[in-house]
Amino acid sequence: MNYFSSDFKLGILGGGQLGKMLLFDTRKFDIQTYVLDPSDEAPCKIACNQFFQGDLMDFDTVYNFGKQVDVLTFEIELVNLEALEKLENEGKKVYPSPKTLRLIQNKGVQKDFYTQHTIPTAPYTRFENLDALQLAVKSSAVELPFVWKCTEFGYDGNGVKVVRKASDLDLLPNVECIAETMIPFKNELAVIVCRNPSGEIKTYPVVEMEFHPEANQVEYVICPARINEKVAEKARAIALNVSQQFNHVGLLAVEMFQTEDDEILVNEVAPRPHNSGHYSIEASYTSQFENHLRAILDLPLGNTDSKVAGIMVNLVGAEGHSGDVVYENIETILGWNGVTPHIYGKKQTRPFRKMGHVTIANENMTEARRIAEEVKNTIRVISK
Amino acid sequence: MNYFSSDFKLGILGGGQLGKMLLFDTRKFDIQTYVLDPSDEAPCKIACNQFFQGDLMDFDTVYNFGKQVDVLTFEIELVNLEALEKLENEGKKVYPSPKTLRLIQNKGVQKDFYTQHTIPTAPYTRFENLDALQLAVKSSAVELPFVWKCTEFGYDGNGVKVVRKASDLDLLPNVECIAETMIPFKNELAVIVCRNPSGEIKTYPVVEMEFHPEANQVEYVICPARINEKVAEKARAIALNVSQQFNHVGLLAVEMFQTEDDEILVNEVAPRPHNSGHYSIEASYTSQFENHLRAILDLPLGNTDSKVAGIMVNLVGAEGHSGDVVYENIETILGWNGVTPHIYGKKQTRPFRKMGHVTIANENMTEARRIAEEVKNTIRVISK
Repeated sequence: MNYFSSDFKLGILGGGQLGKMLLFDTRKFDIQTYVLDPSDEAPCKIACNQFFQGDLMDFDTVYNFGKQVDVLTFEIELVNLEALEKLENEGKKVYPSPKTLRLIQNKGVQKDFYTQHTIPTAPYTRFENLDALQLAVKSSAVELPFVWKCTEFGYDGNGVKVVRKASDLDLLPNVECIAETMIPFKNELAVIVCRNPSGEIKTYPVVEMEFHPEANQVEYVICPARINEKVAEKARAIALNVSQQFNHVGLLAVEMFQTEDDEILVNEVAPRPHNSGHYSIEASYTSQFENHLRAILDLPLGNTDSKVAGIMVNLVGAEGHSGDVVYENIETILGWNGVTPHIYGKKQTRPFRKMGHVTIANENMTEARRIAEEVKNTIRVISK
Repeated sequence: MNYFSSDFKLGILGGGQLGKMLLFDTRKFDIQTYVLDPSDEAPCKIACNQFFQGDLMDFDTVYNFGKQVDVLTFEIELVNLEALEKLENEGKKVYPSPKTLRLIQNKGVQKDFYTQHTIPTAPYTRFENLDALQLAVKSSAVELPFVWKCTEFGYDGNGVKVVRKASDLDLLPNVECIAETMIPFKNELAVIVCRNPSGEIKTYPVVEMEFHPEANQVEYVICPARINEKVAEKARAIALNVSQQFNHVGLLAVEMFQTEDDEILVNEVAPRPHNSGHYSIEASYTSQFENHLRAILDLPLGNTDSKVAGIMVNLVGAEGHSGDVVYENIETILGWNGVTPHIYGKKQTRPFRKMGHVTIANENMTEARRIAEEVKNTIRVISK
């Protein structure tokens, strides 16, 4: 198959920042792209070859879009699965496969999959709705405290809450959910796995994540994680196993907990380029986006090793600011060694909205961490 | 000035591969771009915010284009200088300045500038046309052999010829030219300098260039050059001086010869991102394109150090092939460590046409050089 400067067309469902960063690599390889997104202001609107505005959850829209391309992928999980299944049944290459996506899209199904495949994960119980969970709490079948997760449509901290007392439940929506045992952990880790249809598989180094205590969004992603080599090896082996069990093609970001006694528990996975891999654009030999592209086109995978230490700081909208965005002090941080801001291209900021990220690349991890903290304390995403 | 996700507009004259790679960084920073290029198939046609088709040498076209933007730059020197001068006189920010460009666009003027500013360069004589040069050769005022260079519109080896015998002159066009003394040299080197309007200035490491013997196009660019530290320091100091003398803003690629006795002679300069700096996308903390953008926007310059060794191999059209391009064996080289192809997006190949480049990034220079040679011997740019 000749992908390069040819008539080949890659379709991408979703036109947000993940798609935008993927387009850097389709442009680098001169591979034609069609993008479908509901927003007229999608970050992918330029840099793709053709942009289509439409609903990603609508069967006909997704199906008709898919018919026009040679390979179809997505940068967001919330897409019409039935349309993808029909396209795949008709012989279209859809990567990751809707079969995999079906196992991942619902967190309850995902957790069951781990249990069935003896992949370590925190104990949990599934509930059809909040009413059922409330009954279980009343009868002490579920013990407090626990972690409530809605099984579908959760995103970036929405859909996950710690329930400490019964009345916390009153604030939650009446949807399908799971109650997960709270596990004390030392670290949140992630490993990105890439795998192509021929079965070539590689893992990126283990990264360490630190979350904003309120917004529950990642604040720093640190690569490599500052953990001992044995734990890192275990985490990579588990991530590799998860990808193989899912028979996954493309990137799979595997989020994990390192418990107090150095067990690794799989938290959840994302079948696409992931926030925890953005550091790779600057710090790795091959970025996660290039490797996602290589994987879904069944090309050889690139080197996942790092050239230098990489730390990523998310740029989220400051509290109390809504409206036309201004990146306060961005000129200051641009003056520091190895600092690269990525601005996603959203015109309007609002509190905690993901507006961009900053990568800090440095030979020395301690120095990188110092600069990262200064970056976080200096740049602010505010409105005019 | 708020450049990021704002109404600010950067204009770029020329929409070829240099512009295309610059657009990766305008997209990364979400800076709006307008591009002017004569070709409907320009590589920049997508990924800019607005594309204008028009003649870069036409006064009105360039002037009217420039009026619409806030800062104007170019990725090719062959643009209408008078229009740039008028725009600058009217207060438009044009970087590099047309004053600088006027000193560079004509190689005779450029050589005179070096002489006036005691910048070391090979001895030369200027001629109004070929007839005048022929008379000088006949009268032995110019001695054979020498290097003939046309003073304007030369590009990538066109416009430079070694004249060994008087009859060689018969094949040359009757245009303004210079005759330059042939200097035996060990190495062709280049240093990219970046400088912003505030006067902040940085140099990239010295690179070593190796040319294709027939096409006179660069075959390998090796960073850092494998030369001794004293020579490297001298080359960087000379390049810095050249940039300062030109009062140059943006990137200035300074091509130099290292003579047999380790003198450095300036050959010529290019006031823009340059083929000799493409390695920087993968190997440097800040790519030449990002630093060009930072410089012309008067932002702080990024770190020009390398993370790892970088070697670039140009992908030029194979002899005997014209038509729809195929990158033979590209899948093979993608399987090698640290190998990244850049495909410029030209649909049609022809002999020696610049179609792309491949970067080899590696911790180890010897290993990088070995892989680079394999890349060169494996991938071929052919037609269907």
